[in-house]
Amino acid sequence: MVSVLIVYYTKSGNTREMANMLAGALRGEKIDVEVRDALETSPDYLLDYDGIILGSPTYYGGMAAEMKDLIDRSVKYHGELSGKLGGAFTSSAYIGGGNETTLLSILKAMLIHGMVVVGVHNADHFGPVSIGAPDERAEKQCRIYARKFADTLKILKGFDIVD
Amino acid sequence: MVSVLIVYYTKSGNTREMANMLAGALRGEKIDVEVRDALETSPDYLLDYDGIILGSPTYYGGMAAEMKDLIDRSVKYHGELSGKLGGAFTSSAYIGGGNETTLLSILKAMLIHGMVVVGVHNADHFGPVSIGAPDERAEKQCRIYARKFADTLKILKGFDIVD
Amino acid sequence: MVSVLIVYYTKSGNTREMANMLAGALRGEKIDVEVRDALETSPDYLLDYDGIILGSPTYYGGMAAEMKDLIDRSVKYHGELSGKLGGAFTSSAYIGGGNETTLLSILKAMLIHGMVVVGVHNADHFGPVSIGAPDERAEKQCRIYARKFADTLKILKGFDIVD
Amino acid sequence: MVSVLIVYYTKSGNTREMANMLAGALRGEKIDVEVRDALETSPDYLLDYDGIILGSPTYYGGMAAEMKDLIDRSVKYHGELSGKLGGAFTSSAYIGGGNETTLLSILKAMLIHGMVVVGVHNADHFGPVSIGAPDERAEKQCRIYARKFADTLKILKGFDIVD
Repeated sequence: MVSVLIVYYTKSGNTREMANMLAGALRGEKIDVEVRDALETSPDYLLDYDGIILGSPTYYGGMAAEMKDLIDRSVKYHGELSGKLGGAFTSSAYIGGGNETTLLSILKAMLIHGMVVVGVHNADHFGPVSIGAPDERAEKQCRIYARKFADTLKILKGFDIVD
Repeated sequence: MVSVLIVYYTKSGNTREMANMLAGALRGEKIDVEVRDALETSPDYLLDYDGIILGSPTYYGGMAAEMKDLIDRSVKYHGELSGKLGGAFTSSAYIGGGNETTLLSILKAMLIHGMVVVGVHNADHFGPVSIGAPDERAEKQCRIYARKFADTLKILKGFDIVD
Repeated sequence: MVSVLIVYYTKSGNTREMANMLAGALRGEKIDVEVRDALETSPDYLLDYDGIILGSPTYYGGMAAEMKDLIDRSVKYHGELSGKLGGAFTSSAYIGGGNETTLLSILKAMLIHGMVVVGVHNADHFGPVSIGAPDERAEKQCRIYARKFADTLKILKGFDIVD
Repeated sequence: MVSVLIVYYTKSGNTREMANMLAGALRGEKIDVEVRDALETSPDYLLDYDGIILGSPTYYGGMAAEMKDLIDRSVKYHGELSGKLGGAFTSSAYIGGGNETTLLSILKAMLIHGMVVVGVHNADHFGPVSIGAPDERAEKQCRIYARKFADTLKILKGFDIVD
């Protein structure tokens, strides 16, 4: 079975709720998923999964310092995450409020780790965005993203995709 | 055999030279490669390859308008490039002169197409950069990138990687 | 009187409509404004104004090739735009669809020209965004942005701001 | 007299050295400068200066978590930094290693605060970059940037610029 670690940082609970939406959708795709709070996650955990999805609120156009701290500390494993599939999601107060740049701040860090990332052509392109508390729109985004992420991960791990 | 299309736009010839370096390195990895000038490339070509690598000089922090025009016209195939592997390279006049943002302008467009992109942990992270005319440093970057791109593409297409 | 050039590129008419909203709001701030279509704008025009605002639809996470072409051709005046105030706006089909990265693709080009740019703390931070056809939300964004842009430009040009 | 706060985060000492280079160059422009370590800087300090320049090493394509933490905590003054001039600098291990995206991660946060930022047309465009320990090239970058930053700040504060 293919495995994914979802790490979120949250204050309001919105980003945790998105993490759970994504986890549910990935499990529906027969992925083994673990969900963790960033504050209780050591970089060691990142080694044990085929895919890693990081979620953060949008703070000043980038991920929260608490999530960046996890990424900065992951330097001790630089090179060892290479080839894993990475993804990102964010909850944001506003449209045009930095949600895209937050997703890209996470995806860029993953590329620097040598990871693989994937976009979505028919939904939030860089990862699911919730404007405010996750609503039906956000749930749909999580579902579409989970499907694309799961399919890509299965292909990378040599599993057959049956539509 | 796995296939890659490399499209470049060039004025000085530097970006074309990088395209040829990449093509040589990819062929060394047993990839079927075609190299094309952006001015002679219709979006139709993008459909026929497993991987697509786009190269542009660094102009005002982004790809040249001529390359962006190819991407804008590719909207007629929106969704059909989904799942293909994408890559980018650039030649730039200066360090800190916009080369990273140029690579990212290409990679972001690929993510919006639903494509897969991959970073490199031990060389230019977002794709090979040449500062001025391609030198030994740039050639080494192209070689490392081609290797990572080829390995990732073979995995995506279900080929065995033998080290 | 302080002068601003607004250049837009449009296919659907949405970005032109935003250009006109911005022009109206700037004129309300006693700014001398000219609005031009990018297809009829030579880089020469950029020299004659204190401020320059460029608007483009969101195409694959960046400005349209037609707008990038204007910027690329402006290289003949590299250095001569230094110190002018720059701004950006975009119309986009979707939330999370690349509107922020489009605005930043314009602002980064302006910074490379040595220009000054300004953000907004209480509205679309990098410039006004319209999701679909400009509605009341977009008009409000244009109004708030125009006010901040006008105030900053007047300060840069040594005019008194009277609240 | 016009005042600037420079805040740096450093592990190797490289970013601190750049902070001191910038401070020296700004003082040569008759600016009142204070230099602080991010670990000893509360967001309260940001209120008291006309200009703010933040410097961080390049960590995974963005500023260090310690600097992001300062920015995240500055939310308590959201709106009160509006109109101040902001700048950024970084030290990076490699060319193409994320230095541009690090500078932009800082500048984007400043724009979201409603601040003003300025680019340089004839040197590192988004702010000074040092590749490895600051050398003559980095010192020159700091000097050119300090001059542009000082001139722009004096104009914003209503001082005459005498060349």
